[in-house]
Amino acid sequence: MILALAGGVGAAKLLAGMVRVVQPSTLTVVANTGDDMVLHGLHISPDLDTLLYTLAGLNNAETGWGVANETWSVMDSLEKLGGQTWFRLGDVDLATHLYRTQRMTEGASLSEVTAELFERHHVLARVVPMSDSPVRTRVTVSGTTSGDGWFGTGGEEVEFQEYFVRLAHRATVSALRFDGAETASPAPGVLDAIAAADQIVVCPSNPLVSIGPILAVPGIKDALIARRDDVIAVSPIVGGRALKGPADHMMAELGHQPSSLGVARLYSDWVATLVVDERDAHLRSEIEDEGLACIVTDTVMTDVDVAARVCSQITATRDGDAVLR
Amino acid sequence: MILALAGGVGAAKLLAGMVRVVQPSTLTVVANTGDDMVLHGLHISPDLDTLLYTLAGLNNAETGWGVANETWSVMDSLEKLGGQTWFRLGDVDLATHLYRTQRMTEGASLSEVTAELFERHHVLARVVPMSDSPVRTRVTVSGTTSGDGWFGTGGEEVEFQEYFVRLAHRATVSALRFDGAETASPAPGVLDAIAAADQIVVCPSNPLVSIGPILAVPGIKDALIARRDDVIAVSPIVGGRALKGPADHMMAELGHQPSSLGVARLYSDWVATLVVDERDAHLRSEIEDEGLACIVTDTVMTDVDVAARVCSQITATRDGDAVLR
Repeated sequence: MILALAGGVGAAKLLAGMVRVVQPSTLTVVANTGDDMVLHGLHISPDLDTLLYTLAGLNNAETGWGVANETWSVMDSLEKLGGQTWFRLGDVDLATHLYRTQRMTEGASLSEVTAELFERHHVLARVVPMSDSPVRTRVTVSGTTSGDGWFGTGGEEVEFQEYFVRLAHRATVSALRFDGAETASPAPGVLDAIAAADQIVVCPSNPLVSIGPILAVPGIKDALIARRDDVIAVSPIVGGRALKGPADHMMAELGHQPSSLGVARLYSDWVATLVVDERDAHLRSEIEDEGLACIVTDTVMTDVDVAARVCSQITATRDGDAVLR
Repeated sequence: MILALAGGVGAAKLLAGMVRVVQPSTLTVVANTGDDMVLHGLHISPDLDTLLYTLAGLNNAETGWGVANETWSVMDSLEKLGGQTWFRLGDVDLATHLYRTQRMTEGASLSEVTAELFERHHVLARVVPMSDSPVRTRVTVSGTTSGDGWFGTGGEEVEFQEYFVRLAHRATVSALRFDGAETASPAPGVLDAIAAADQIVVCPSNPLVSIGPILAVPGIKDALIARRDDVIAVSPIVGGRALKGPADHMMAELGHQPSSLGVARLYSDWVATLVVDERDAHLRSEIEDEGLACIVTDTVMTDVDVAARVCSQITATRDGDAVLR
């Protein structure tokens, strides 16, 4: 059994490859819900939905979020009403949020609704939110280079999606907080899955705001530390740049080196092996000095075949295939 | 100034005529919100929306609810997910509910959001909910002739829309309750508008579940009683039948005569004049015996011209046009 820790787009790309190289039903994915938000009264879980649409083969590969061939009837009408349309919700996507919100209103947990949604889309991998309790990532932004509706001069704390989408992550980040994490519990089955996994894969997601919230749920990091030897992470940073999203400058802004070495330092107490791109081969010895094994390969997942190859290499390490190290 | 008490479709038809015969900005409409519901996390106000779409000229004249040329992308997707689709929400309509729900989440009152929505649709008439507090009509149903998903044998209390839409009002009603009414207050301006109106028009809406909830909000009925001489109602029953909806059999089931005479009896303490259809001309003397003046005319609003003519007759009574009586 493989357990994966996942954020959104980068994770979904890797896992679309994973379900080609392992039996999908042997894969359990623990997903970040720190990005979740309530907008228009709807419970929106961006990372869960990116995983859902990608694993169901419905995703919009161009944008990285939402579904392909999406229609925008509701957003178009909402725009005419002067409503909030900065967070674009397509019609098909909205149905997911309506379904989730109604089921939660009826008393279902986020885990239960998530299981239902993946089942309805015939996804055999088991995807669970990190917690059924609300954990909300809040970002303290100090000034923005975007003139897009927000002209703060520093110190404002905003919701994650305000930072990520509304400000197009162009603001400088001075602090992160995972609101609700202290009192949250891992979702049912998460700790057991970590304990039982043959291998634990950390997807190439933002270490601070995608993997960070998962680690902030009490009990999860300790469970991972206990499995350190079997934890392998794919660095989301290639040549000092995040392939998508703000991981690079956010790491720098928060005092971390924006490189695979910085990722190794963030992960060293609970990750044994780091997979880095060939462009980061020169960082190998420094990464090893941090106590991690280092696998160098082409990690830029331009298509699902590349993702599948990376996943083959990852699963091969479980069988002691030393060639790759 | 004219004040109207309104439910949904029948009221909207009459008021579409009213804004042709009076300056729209002189019309204030107090609308029933007892039918409101939260579904999929969205605050839905069916009567307010029927008034909105009709007065904005966007309504679907065939169905009587929703907007014309509506699209159903979200419902189609929700159906595939196995979500609740018995209450059909079109894409354009959904935008209204998203807007309303988000604004209420931000702290706006239902009155404020309603004013915004009518303004965005360039409706000059002022439409206000009866109350900003939630009042929810609950229907006790005793058996159903519909096999449509519900096979209760009696005594179950359901939400109004479950009775009205899900059971297609085919169940027998044994009781009504306006949950929350005791502690509700009239929305800002309602009592003042009742006191200041030159004429008060009761639209041809269901006396029990459209006008009833409005009267159940403390203060409104007393304010109407004080204006009784200026209150004129249009009977929603023609020849013993409701033109739309369950008013006829619901009145019978709850012990009222399902006729314009039954309406007169329900309204006699706060309505001075009842407008009835020509088919009910034979009821005139009995209606007058209940203490109401009776106007007989063609009240079947097959189109907006008929509605405008009925409204002309209504407003003429204000000027003492005795010909009509």
